[in-house]
Amino acid sequence: MSALEKIKLAKKASGSLAIASTIQKNDALEQIAKLLVAFEKDIVAANLKDLERAKTDGLSAGLQDRLMLNTERIAGLAKSMHEIVSLPDPIGEAIRGMTLPNGLKLSETRVPFGVVGAIYEARPNVTVDISALALKAGNAVVLRGGTAAENTNIALVKILQQGLVKAGLSSDLVQTVDDFGREGASAMIAARGLIDVLIPRGSAGLIKAVVEDSKVPVIETGDGVTHVYIDDSANPDWSVEIVHNSKVQRPSTCNALETLLVHEAVSKTILPKVLKRLADSGVTIHGDKETCAIFPAAVAATEQDWSAEYYSLDLAVKVVAGLDQALEHIAKYSTYHTEVIITDSSAHAERFLAEVDSAVVMVNAATRFTDGGQFGFGAEVGISTQKLHARGPMGLSELTSTKWLVRGSGQTRI
Amino acid sequence: MSALEKIKLAKKASGSLAIASTIQKNDALEQIAKLLVAFEKDIVAANLKDLERAKTDGLSAGLQDRLMLNTERIAGLAKSMHEIVSLPDPIGEAIRGMTLPNGLKLSETRVPFGVVGAIYEARPNVTVDISALALKAGNAVVLRGGTAAENTNIALVKILQQGLVKAGLSSDLVQTVDDFGREGASAMIAARGLIDVLIPRGSAGLIKAVVEDSKVPVIETGDGVTHVYIDDSANPDWSVEIVHNSKVQRPSTCNALETLLVHEAVSKTILPKVLKRLADSGVTIHGDKETCAIFPAAVAATEQDWSAEYYSLDLAVKVVAGLDQALEHIAKYSTYHTEVIITDSSAHAERFLAEVDSAVVMVNAATRFTDGGQFGFGAEVGISTQKLHARGPMGLSELTSTKWLVRGSGQTRI
Repeated sequence: MSALEKIKLAKKASGSLAIASTIQKNDALEQIAKLLVAFEKDIVAANLKDLERAKTDGLSAGLQDRLMLNTERIAGLAKSMHEIVSLPDPIGEAIRGMTLPNGLKLSETRVPFGVVGAIYEARPNVTVDISALALKAGNAVVLRGGTAAENTNIALVKILQQGLVKAGLSSDLVQTVDDFGREGASAMIAARGLIDVLIPRGSAGLIKAVVEDSKVPVIETGDGVTHVYIDDSANPDWSVEIVHNSKVQRPSTCNALETLLVHEAVSKTILPKVLKRLADSGVTIHGDKETCAIFPAAVAATEQDWSAEYYSLDLAVKVVAGLDQALEHIAKYSTYHTEVIITDSSAHAERFLAEVDSAVVMVNAATRFTDGGQFGFGAEVGISTQKLHARGPMGLSELTSTKWLVRGSGQTRI
Repeated sequence: MSALEKIKLAKKASGSLAIASTIQKNDALEQIAKLLVAFEKDIVAANLKDLERAKTDGLSAGLQDRLMLNTERIAGLAKSMHEIVSLPDPIGEAIRGMTLPNGLKLSETRVPFGVVGAIYEARPNVTVDISALALKAGNAVVLRGGTAAENTNIALVKILQQGLVKAGLSSDLVQTVDDFGREGASAMIAARGLIDVLIPRGSAGLIKAVVEDSKVPVIETGDGVTHVYIDDSANPDWSVEIVHNSKVQRPSTCNALETLLVHEAVSKTILPKVLKRLADSGVTIHGDKETCAIFPAAVAATEQDWSAEYYSLDLAVKVVAGLDQALEHIAKYSTYHTEVIITDSSAHAERFLAEVDSAVVMVNAATRFTDGGQFGFGAEVGISTQKLHARGPMGLSELTSTKWLVRGSGQTRI
C-alpha cells in the first residue's frame, strides 16, 4: 500500500469518528492507557534500540533526552490519556449563535478537522500525545515520526490501533507513513483535500521545509529562543529561582530559557546570585562584556549566541540599559514563543505584556510553564508560534474547526 | 520604492495601530465613509474607465458586474463603514482565562495579526471592505487588487489613506502593490514574517496559485459550487422561492446557487413549478435525463455541469432517489461553501446538518445568506472554505490572533 493510499484510508475512516460519541472516544483512550502500561516493557525495549542507534549516530544529548522513554515517562503518557478523557469533548460546542432580524437562526459549532497530520523527529511521546488529542477531537491522524524513533513508534502505533479496535473503532484512524521514509512526508505535504492540517514538530530545518513546501495548511510549531528580562525592581529571590528553573529543569525543551537580559541597575546585585546558582548546576554562561566583567567564569558571547536555541546547559546573558532596550532586543531576536519579565513595577509589567509580540508573555513566572499539560490541556500537540488558527500551547480545541448551522423557515434575501 | 519596501512600511506602521484606541480606529472609518460619499463622482469616473476596458477585453458579464461601482454601491460601502464602527472592537477581548493550581493567572487575549494581505481581482469593493475590517481589528493592510480594477482601486486607496491621516493615523497602514504588477503579488506571497496572513479572492486559478506558492499562511476563500436539495417533504412555496432567490438575486456571487437536487417523489409536483419560475427569469436549466423529460426547455447536462460555478443565469438540475443520494452527490462535487436542504422532516434536516461537511449548512433558507453583511459582521473579508482559523464568512474576529498573558508571583515548575 502506498503512503497516499494510507492517507486515503485515514480520510475515509474520519467520517465515522466525526459522529462517534464522547463515550466511545473516551473508551478508546482508556484502552490505549491500559495497553501502554501493559506493554511498557516492549516499548522500553524498542526504545533502547533507538537510543543505541542514536548514540552510534552521535545525536545530541538534547535529542537523546527527547527520544528516551522510561517507565516514568510511559506512566506519564498513560496519565495524559486519563486527563484527556476527563476533559470536555469540544465537538458540538456552540461557539457563537444569533437570530437574524429575519428569523434565521445561526449557530457556529465546533466540528473535527477530519484528518490531522504530524511530521516530527525523535519524539515518540508526540506519537501518543497528538494521536490522543486528535482522536478525542474526532480526527483521524497520519503520523510521520522519523527514523530516529522508528522502533519506538512502531510499538506505539500498534498500541494506538489496538486501543481503537478494543473500543469498536476503526484501526484505520491512526496511520503511519514511516515505512515510506522521506516519500511518506512528501505524500503528506501534497495531500491537500485529504489531510486538513499539518503539524510539524522538530528542528527549525524540518519545520521550515514543511512550511515552505506544504500544499496542506500548516501550523508552525516553534523554535523557542525565549527570554527572561530582570527589571530593576525585580525580586532577587524570584529572579534566581525563575531563571534557574527556566534554564535547568529540562533544557532540551523549546520552552527552556535561552537568553537572559538584566537591567544594568541590578547587574552587580541580583545578576551575580543568578549566575552563581546557574553555574552550580553546570550551566555555561555566554556573556556580553559587562556580564564577563561581573562573572569571570563566563565565556564571551558572539552575535550567534543571541539567536541560539541551545537545548543544553548554555545561556546567553546580556546587561541592558532598561526596559526599552530589553524590548528592542526581544523584537530583534525572539522566535515569538515565550518571554518573561521579572519586575515589581505594574507599569513595566503591563508594557511588557502589551508590546512583546509572542505567543506567551509572562510576568514573574518561569518560561517552562508554556506547555499544554501545565495549561490544563491534558497533553500537547505542540506550541504554535504562528498567528493563524492557534497560538501558544495547542490542546483539544486547537484540533477542531467550526461550521455554521443555519435554520430557517423559507427565508429569502431581499 | 519596491513592493518589499512598501510591505515593510506596513509592518512598521502596524505596531502603532495595534495599540491605537477604539475611538481613534472608529474615527478613521467615519472619515473614510465621509470621503467615499464626497468623492463619489471621482470613484464612478475612475470605475467607468475600468468598465470600458473590461468591455474591450471581453470580461464576462459576471466579472463586469463585480467590477461595477455606482452611486448605490458606493453608498453601500459607506454604510458598511458605519456598521463596522458600531461593532465592538475585538482587540483586548479575553477569550479564555483560568487560574492554575499554583496561582498562575492565564488569559488568552485577542490581538491584531499585524499585517493582513489581500490578493484579488476585479472587485473594488474588496479594497474598502477588507481594509476597513482589517483596520478596525488593528491590522495594517497590503493590497494587490489587479489590473482590471486599477483606476478604481487607485481612487479608493487614496480615500483610505486620507481617512487614516484625518484620524491622526499613519497613511502607511494601507499599502497597494498594484504598481508592480505580478511582482507585487510575488513579493507578498514571499513576505513570511512581514505579512501575517494572506487572503486571496477571485478565480479558482488565482486562489490555487496563491495557496500553492505562498510562504505566508493563507486563508482560502472559495469557489462556491453550492447545492440546494429539495426533499420529499419540502414545502412547495418555499422550494420555489428559495431556489429562485438563491439563483437569480445576484448570480455573479460565490453564494449563488449552482446545482439543484430534487427528490424523485416531488419531481413531477414541485420541480416543474420551481423550473418555470426560474425560466421566467431567464435561467437556462442544465438538466439530467429526468429533468429534461419533465421540462423540455432544459438542455442536457454533461459531467462538467455538476462541477460548474456558472456565475450566470444557468443552473444544473438533477433528480435523486433521496437524501442518501443527495449527500453522496454533494460530497463528490461540493466546494464546501454552502449547501441547503428544503424539508419538513426534522430527522432529515438534522442528518443534513451533521453530515454535510461545508462551511455553512442550511435548512429552509436561501444560499445567498452566506455573507458577512447578512451574518451581522458589517462587511466581509471573504468566505473561508478551508477549515483552519476561519470557516464561512469572515468578519472582524477572523482578522485577529490571540496571545496568552500569564501573571505570576515567582512560580517555578516542579
